[in-house]
Amino acid sequence: MSKLYLDDISAGDTFKSGDFEVTAQSIKEFAALWDPQVFHLDEVAAEDSFFNGLAASGWQTACITMRLLVTSGFTPVNGVIGAGIEELKWFRPVRPGDVLRAEMEVLEVRPMRSKPGYGICRMRVTTVDAAGEKVQVFTSPLVVQSKG
Amino acid sequence: MSKLYLDDISAGDTFKSGDFEVTAQSIKEFAALWDPQVFHLDEVAAEDSFFNGLAASGWQTACITMRLLVTSGFTPVNGVIGAGIEELKWFRPVRPGDVLRAEMEVLEVRPMRSKPGYGICRMRVTTVDAAGEKVQVFTSPLVVQSKG
Repeated sequence: MSKLYLDDISAGDTFKSGDFEVTAQSIKEFAALWDPQVFHLDEVAAEDSFFNGLAASGWQTACITMRLLVTSGFTPVNGVIGAGIEELKWFRPVRPGDVLRAEMEVLEVRPMRSKPGYGICRMRVTTVDAAGEKVQVFTSPLVVQSKG
Repeated sequence: MSKLYLDDISAGDTFKSGDFEVTAQSIKEFAALWDPQVFHLDEVAAEDSFFNGLAASGWQTACITMRLLVTSGFTPVNGVIGAGIEELKWFRPVRPGDVLRAEMEVLEVRPMRSKPGYGICRMRVTTVDAAGEKVQVFTSPLVVQSKG
């Protein structure tokens, strides 16, 4: 895939990722490392928890989304480099068997005064399930190299 | 540690986590799963990248912070359950050898109209290095059970 410079990207551009299937094993392995709480670690104990069953860490949904973003057709020349995250929201728990994909929309493209040769591409990243329902959304200002 | 209900938590309360040492192996293992980009995967190739050397995925810094948060003295009775993330910022790349810890401050405690018996504890979570310098900050509205 051809690499994108800031000059190649415009507000309104959209990109779609492939799919990621969430498994119980993946939920438990992620949780053991990064979010060791009972509702992410053990199916039986999770039944009596806030989530009423095994649920992925919200951070895993974010990480799955990053993986989908990085492996999609959106290929900035210097990589997918976020300066931060604005307003990340989770709409429902992610469960074993969920198949997720990411939909990206460029909201704004502007030069960066603090870093000549680079600009900001503000992107809304929506993670949806197989039915197309939103499970997560965030906006991120990405740092993208200019041609100049 | 005793479990905390919403009633036990007040704006201004602070909590501190233990330490987490970031290794090159951990950076590469995380990246292979969730953020497979060259500057997170390979020391040599990373030298010529945006980061001028191996750097952790920002999402890994977020995940390390969640691990520190969950294993700290802040122990809500229903678990550490974020409804979302407000304004996550990264201040510098995290490198092999960095030792991180999390500092939490409760900004606001309020009942939740949409979910009786629960409330929102808005918490600012600052991740610092061994010198106490900020590497990441985010605010998260946590869902915490009330006594009532």
